[in-house]
Amino acid sequence: MSERAAASAGGHRFRLRVYWEDTDAAGIVYYANYLRFIERARSDFVRRAGIDQWALLTAEGLSFQVRRCEIDYRKPARLDDELEVETTIQRLGGASLEMAQVVRGAGRELVRALVRLACVDGGGQPRRIPGPVRQALRNHAGQETEG
Amino acid sequence: MSERAAASAGGHRFRLRVYWEDTDAAGIVYYANYLRFIERARSDFVRRAGIDQWALLTAEGLSFQVRRCEIDYRKPARLDDELEVETTIQRLGGASLEMAQVVRGAGRELVRALVRLACVDGGGQPRRIPGPVRQALRNHAGQETEG
Amino acid sequence: MSERAAASAGGHRFRLRVYWEDTDAAGIVYYANYLRFIERARSDFVRRAGIDQWALLTAEGLSFQVRRCEIDYRKPARLDDELEVETTIQRLGGASLEMAQVVRGAGRELVRALVRLACVDGGGQPRRIPGPVRQALRNHAGQETEG
Amino acid sequence: MSERAAASAGGHRFRLRVYWEDTDAAGIVYYANYLRFIERARSDFVRRAGIDQWALLTAEGLSFQVRRCEIDYRKPARLDDELEVETTIQRLGGASLEMAQVVRGAGRELVRALVRLACVDGGGQPRRIPGPVRQALRNHAGQETEG
Repeated sequence: MSERAAASAGGHRFRLRVYWEDTDAAGIVYYANYLRFIERARSDFVRRAGIDQWALLTAEGLSFQVRRCEIDYRKPARLDDELEVETTIQRLGGASLEMAQVVRGAGRELVRALVRLACVDGGGQPRRIPGPVRQALRNHAGQETEG
Repeated sequence: MSERAAASAGGHRFRLRVYWEDTDAAGIVYYANYLRFIERARSDFVRRAGIDQWALLTAEGLSFQVRRCEIDYRKPARLDDELEVETTIQRLGGASLEMAQVVRGAGRELVRALVRLACVDGGGQPRRIPGPVRQALRNHAGQETEG
Repeated sequence: MSERAAASAGGHRFRLRVYWEDTDAAGIVYYANYLRFIERARSDFVRRAGIDQWALLTAEGLSFQVRRCEIDYRKPARLDDELEVETTIQRLGGASLEMAQVVRGAGRELVRALVRLACVDGGGQPRRIPGPVRQALRNHAGQETEG
Repeated sequence: MSERAAASAGGHRFRLRVYWEDTDAAGIVYYANYLRFIERARSDFVRRAGIDQWALLTAEGLSFQVRRCEIDYRKPARLDDELEVETTIQRLGGASLEMAQVVRGAGRELVRALVRLACVDGGGQPRRIPGPVRQALRNHAGQETEG
């Protein structure tokens, strides 16, 4: 709702704006904040797939935790910039998935990330992704690929 | 752009979503993060008034700094909640201004803030708000009051 | 542990350093981050009083939520600055308390805050501060006042 | 100053505490915040090597920007946990360097990161690391290895 997102050939797209909170004294977006940006995009992806993360957490004790992240910083973003995050599912396994995410500004690639997530219970133990969740992710990713 | 904003009777409205980054281990939005939310709303207000904060900072060395903030926390917000921030200019002085901001979720008032800002130069010294900036703020606030 | 804290005449003292994450594109500490700083100081105060917030939350479902905050920003802090937060209990009520906090850098007062907290249960309803917690707060504050 | 750091066999060690601001609604440290933690450790490393980042930025327009980060999340940290970040220089090139960082809690490895940094000017262009800075990094890393 809050940020505009669109599905299209190539993946789920999520737009956001850079605010003062995101920048640092070097005048650019602080490197850790791109992980906040791409998480917003993943949450939006999941929401649009019809999955309620909060219900999943409170009713079934399940959440998706990041297990590994590779992130390349190519160009900096600045205050007031409009950014777009493109997210695609690279691999959907039994208890984990992998997403590729690209952050662009003014059409140029700024940051590229590969994120591996695991479905875990309240104790942090890996759990199979529930069937309906898996199906929703698959359908949603499929729709987007088809544009 | 990134968050939907609308002007209407009562003030400038800015919508945002609560993400994991905003919550804490008590399951609710961490108290400092409302200051991030209301700053996004103020920046959106200023942008829609036609003022370029980044140009103001880099070309004239001017920025608006918060000098005082009173904030009342009435109800908590949670993950995935849609929030709306309503912003109105309460007072527009020579080198400072005061804004009242209300954060609502599902139509209920969650947080209420009164923020005093000063126009300062790079050394933090108060400076008169430039005429065109003042005029833009006045016009924009006026439009909104009229709905 | 991580930050040095000391009790002395006038209140509990907590030291911290300003990092890149705390600054913004104006080259100073972003205004919301002082709320993070003073929360660290309050948590340290509580910990040194012998209160385990995490046990309180997970075993009894209780936490302290900020209900109101008045904060005055007098001078900015910058990257690498060493800051000290002085915290004193102003009022210790049945289900709430009020703390005064001053942030100093190089001996100068930068920020001053008055924070009202409520003891709440998991549903956000006010609850009496448990006797041992109240006693610990009173003893700890007392020690400090006496220096 | 604010966090205790120590040099020893194996690298530079930096300790910190987990606060409410660092956690999320899943009850654990939010994944992006480890990037804040390891940046504090790198800044402390650099400071202890005698390098003044702020002077470097304001006098010479130079800063170290993260170009790539690989981060593995093995175990979660929780509120009030004491963490230690161990940092070692893996490679010191002409205009870039690589640091390996391990975050531990209660002696167990929680997070492991490999960070590549570039020395850049105000326009983001790569610049040679100034001789005194390189020497300071080399000496400091050497001292620690000998620990």
